[in-house]
Amino acid sequence: MAVYKMKLCVLGFGAVGQGVANVVLQKHDELIERYGLDLEITAIADRSGAAINADGLDLQLALNTKKETGKIKDYPEFGVSDVDGLQVLDLADYDCLVEATPTNIEDGEPTQSNILKAFNDKKDVVTSNKGPLSLNFKTLVDAAKENGVKFRFEASVGGAMPVINTARQSLAGNKIKSVQGILNGTTNYILSRMANEGTEYEPTLKEAQELGIAETDPYQDVEGLDAACKIVIIANSLMGWDVTLKDVSLHGISDITSNAVKLALKDGYLIKLVAEAKDGKLTVGPMLVKQGSPFAVNGTLNVINFKTDLSDDVTVVGVGAGSIETASAILSDIISISKANAN
Amino acid sequence: MAVYKMKLCVLGFGAVGQGVANVVLQKHDELIERYGLDLEITAIADRSGAAINADGLDLQLALNTKKETGKIKDYPEFGVSDVDGLQVLDLADYDCLVEATPTNIEDGEPTQSNILKAFNDKKDVVTSNKGPLSLNFKTLVDAAKENGVKFRFEASVGGAMPVINTARQSLAGNKIKSVQGILNGTTNYILSRMANEGTEYEPTLKEAQELGIAETDPYQDVEGLDAACKIVIIANSLMGWDVTLKDVSLHGISDITSNAVKLALKDGYLIKLVAEAKDGKLTVGPMLVKQGSPFAVNGTLNVINFKTDLSDDVTVVGVGAGSIETASAILSDIISISKANAN
Repeated sequence: MAVYKMKLCVLGFGAVGQGVANVVLQKHDELIERYGLDLEITAIADRSGAAINADGLDLQLALNTKKETGKIKDYPEFGVSDVDGLQVLDLADYDCLVEATPTNIEDGEPTQSNILKAFNDKKDVVTSNKGPLSLNFKTLVDAAKENGVKFRFEASVGGAMPVINTARQSLAGNKIKSVQGILNGTTNYILSRMANEGTEYEPTLKEAQELGIAETDPYQDVEGLDAACKIVIIANSLMGWDVTLKDVSLHGISDITSNAVKLALKDGYLIKLVAEAKDGKLTVGPMLVKQGSPFAVNGTLNVINFKTDLSDDVTVVGVGAGSIETASAILSDIISISKANAN
Repeated sequence: MAVYKMKLCVLGFGAVGQGVANVVLQKHDELIERYGLDLEITAIADRSGAAINADGLDLQLALNTKKETGKIKDYPEFGVSDVDGLQVLDLADYDCLVEATPTNIEDGEPTQSNILKAFNDKKDVVTSNKGPLSLNFKTLVDAAKENGVKFRFEASVGGAMPVINTARQSLAGNKIKSVQGILNGTTNYILSRMANEGTEYEPTLKEAQELGIAETDPYQDVEGLDAACKIVIIANSLMGWDVTLKDVSLHGISDITSNAVKLALKDGYLIKLVAEAKDGKLTVGPMLVKQGSPFAVNGTLNVINFKTDLSDDVTVVGVGAGSIETASAILSDIISISKANAN
């Protein structure tokens, strides 16, 4: 098998970026054997600066450096300080940008500028970042098309639960008529605990924060914004809609009482935060879900249901977040780009 | 968008073959618009003979002919009698064979010879037929490789439930460690009814036969052979095993009593016919499945769970059979071949 070499530039070195480094490290030889794909990371950037080496970074050393000092700029010999993402893209020798900087749903920056610059430089892009995708989907997709490069974002929707690629490839002959999903693990964890333990919202949220399942600032999760971003991306990419975050009718879970959860249980239902794209409308809000239905998933799991014209209902359940899990979605996008380019 | 023309030869004109004709008819213009794919069926064969026209068959006329006389050889002007599949492959002008003749799990014929001839003639092949795939997987895959052609078989496993392509594409970076699935709709219908209605096996099977859900000869379904074929195909294609139908440890559902189903229910379980590929072993047999788990699917639904190294558990639920549903899986394979060839 001919070996195809692909150099990655990773912007953002938090949970997702480190997951990508871990996965590339762990899978390097396996990927050559299975796909003839020789993956190399030639640049990694975080807030502190970057590590850049056209001959490939030592990923174990990069992960250790980050762990020890918290700053990738301390990477021996090839560490660089005082550079932002755009500058790193100029300095790095790479084929594909992995954009994994923190999500910003106000203006999508700096992710959006990073991605557009990569497109402009004729580089492929894989991202896990919901921000610019839920604000300016068409701008990004059109820019990729104009520059003749590839743009994939499976990891932005549901972590390791395959959504975009399942619909685009496995269900390629179908029209997606509507989509319903539990797309946020944090809220699903809180609502599952409230149902299983009979607890109130506030202490359950606190418990989730202590376990690291909910963020210190849980606003985007519990108010449904995270799920809203995801359903926007799904509607745009799989159903041909042209919508943004502001088109979503939104209701979070913070006003749900243990009493409401108990009443639902008594009638055979669970309260879940459900995101929906149906009849031209986008909604995110608490919904009653039948116990024993595929949507009655517990804990941090995610689930998505596609209603299609030929295949009827197709439902996928998977892990919606996590460092390695999200990195695995990024990796499947990278493999798919490498296959298309190697052809 | 450049339009890519692809000519199909359809062998077998039962439920699946007619589904393919229906789907190509219904989706022709949509496929040109979405994928630049201009699909044409230039030959259709059944036991009676064939209809062959290099300029493309009138699919509505083909479906009407089959409906009226039961014989595709009666197709006006271009009907041919006394030809078998191999002869049709010589007479037809086509790029891709859609092999949809009835499944034979004794020796895989005539499907296997049809497929091997198509490979030899440098044609791509899509099939829904489990027979040769579960008997001689490696022979077929190697022959496709040697001839440099494409071979897809999503429809052979789980109808419209995307299994093969989900694992190969959406989970491309993962190793599949084990697979568990409810892969037969007939038995799942019978076991669901026995649980929901408290009925015994024999009358429930009769009811399923009356509804057309079970076949007149239900042997392959209720004794687990159908599910066994599917788990063999999954293990070979997704996990790199080299196994055949005789490697499956097999137990059907015909000795399950309503009493056993009731006892399981009382303890919070359902009895399901589960197929498994795990630790080098293939098994098909009745298993206890927790109520409320993703495996507690009702009716004729199928479900599959992949345990992976990076993405943890991924579960897919879908419709496991049906004319249009199976045809939709064939269509997704055809689209994927057309994309690869158009590159």
